[in-house]
Amino acid sequence: MTQLANDRLLRALLREPVDVTPVWMMRQAGRYLPEYRATRAKAGDFMTLCRTPELACEVTLQPLERYALDAAILFSDILTIPDAMGLGLYFSAGEGPRFERKVSSREDVARLGVPDPEGELRYVMDAVRTIRRELNGRVPLIGFSGSPWTLATYMVEGGSSKDFGAVKGMMFDQPQLMHSLLDVLARTVTAYLNAQIAAGAQAVMIFDTWGGALTPRDYREFSLRYMARIVDGLARESEGRRVPVILFTKGGSGWLEDMAETGCDALGIDWTLDLAEARRRVGDRVALQGNMDPCALYASPERIRAEVETVLASFGHGEGHVFNLGHGIHQHIDPEHVRVFIDAVHELSAPYHT
Amino acid sequence: MTQLANDRLLRALLREPVDVTPVWMMRQAGRYLPEYRATRAKAGDFMTLCRTPELACEVTLQPLERYALDAAILFSDILTIPDAMGLGLYFSAGEGPRFERKVSSREDVARLGVPDPEGELRYVMDAVRTIRRELNGRVPLIGFSGSPWTLATYMVEGGSSKDFGAVKGMMFDQPQLMHSLLDVLARTVTAYLNAQIAAGAQAVMIFDTWGGALTPRDYREFSLRYMARIVDGLARESEGRRVPVILFTKGGSGWLEDMAETGCDALGIDWTLDLAEARRRVGDRVALQGNMDPCALYASPERIRAEVETVLASFGHGEGHVFNLGHGIHQHIDPEHVRVFIDAVHELSAPYHT
Repeated sequence: MTQLANDRLLRALLREPVDVTPVWMMRQAGRYLPEYRATRAKAGDFMTLCRTPELACEVTLQPLERYALDAAILFSDILTIPDAMGLGLYFSAGEGPRFERKVSSREDVARLGVPDPEGELRYVMDAVRTIRRELNGRVPLIGFSGSPWTLATYMVEGGSSKDFGAVKGMMFDQPQLMHSLLDVLARTVTAYLNAQIAAGAQAVMIFDTWGGALTPRDYREFSLRYMARIVDGLARESEGRRVPVILFTKGGSGWLEDMAETGCDALGIDWTLDLAEARRRVGDRVALQGNMDPCALYASPERIRAEVETVLASFGHGEGHVFNLGHGIHQHIDPEHVRVFIDAVHELSAPYHT
Repeated sequence: MTQLANDRLLRALLREPVDVTPVWMMRQAGRYLPEYRATRAKAGDFMTLCRTPELACEVTLQPLERYALDAAILFSDILTIPDAMGLGLYFSAGEGPRFERKVSSREDVARLGVPDPEGELRYVMDAVRTIRRELNGRVPLIGFSGSPWTLATYMVEGGSSKDFGAVKGMMFDQPQLMHSLLDVLARTVTAYLNAQIAAGAQAVMIFDTWGGALTPRDYREFSLRYMARIVDGLARESEGRRVPVILFTKGGSGWLEDMAETGCDALGIDWTLDLAEARRRVGDRVALQGNMDPCALYASPERIRAEVETVLASFGHGEGHVFNLGHGIHQHIDPEHVRVFIDAVHELSAPYHT
């Protein structure tokens, strides 16, 4: 158990004072970095990269070598869970993730068990342990999982979907079956995140990538309810410190108040909402993480700095802001622009913390 | 000039009393209908269908033969405008719309003129005239255009885009160039919609499909501002009746108040917002059009009726509601489910208008 050299992230997530606003990026270990592409090529394919703790650790640390990031995030994929449930994840060129077996019937759902995080998913926990050892207290490590609803979309559709016809068909016509599926997923995610915390994750984030495809009613019943149940079931302390929980529903800016009610510590915010407005709506119940438009990184250094300042000013003075992009960094971003971005957050945010 | 046998749509868009809630569907003339697929096969390709007024009229009327719809909408495509500007629209299998030439530089923008609606775009106006003649006053005909921002995304990206890197790159780094492009597009859309109104369109709708990809600040500056300018420039009366204008920004539920300020008559609402909440926010300034989740049409007839009732109850009593889906109908929907949907709106809405 190492003392953290930089604990800004944990402090900001708990709305405690910091010297400058901490910053990290969703998908910061990713294809925009040539060293990531090299490791990925060495691994051969994406899932081998996820399943090999040394390689997962290597790519997790790569962005930290380049930039003054305030957090590392476990390199993994949200679909490790359905894969461990026996659905047979594979990636086909141009089509994204696919499953050999999809979940359609009562029998399919009944067959799903909660995978053992130190069994089928041990490679994830080994990656967490390896990364923590290699980080050696430099910055905190964030663990993560997909939300039950988001995982269910892939499991019922058999992969990525544009219109969610199958999963929403199940939701509308067989709500009890959908609830059974979400229930086993919520139990799985709870065990999975608790195991990540036990293995060394110092904060955890739940990615609800597809909650924003629901109506407000269906979001509360089929997505938020299960995320709230997970938040309830998480170990909130580890190594003598509180482990903050971040919820992020892409496209969920209409429902921040409801999300803040779950008992989480922070909300991820996409770029379609001003942070001033988000802060006004959730008050001091939770910290906010976000929310620069990822496309701003295509712009010139001058313009990137201006966007950083706009986002900082929108949150305003005071504590409880973790700077991030509103979604994952795009693969064609120039790594030098990322440096400008990260440095600008630290440089320009100091006046907001005096 | 024919008297309208059914003017519910126009009345509801102006918040005037109706007997039952009018209903139509975005993309109601589309691939879910076998007769549409037959006409499209006869045409050979999509743009020939758009460019042949008799065929465009044929597919426009097809859903009206099957269902008790309260409106027809011109069959066309938002990309007729950039095509008429000389960019060379084509459709490649699996990739969606593409342009032979994209707009990248100052010279590219300078080269763009406002196409003559009765010249390069005469086929659209001929379709409007043909449809009006064939409708013979049965229901009103809605004309439409893409918004300047939405058209600009296709023109700068050279087709569909997932992340809008090129168009947002231009927006961030060359805002004056972006404004020049949006300016010529706003003038074009104004002339195009006015010509549709002169040719017989009885209501018009502006589709801002990609406004929701912007931050609130950029939305106001690069999308809403130009839609407001168009609304200002439209002929609001024709054939002795007011011509209602509907604005629809997909993913724009955060900005309804600003949209209502443009002077439009109605707002399209996607399914991520309850109509009760939308109505509370815009008051009686505008009518609301929407907003059933298009995926509800995958469900059973019983469940479809329940969803219709939920949406009707959410809007509540009183005038100013046009029922629609929150986005276009999906291609794999069973046409019999559509009948259940349309009939349910009329049957279940009567109590809300007493």
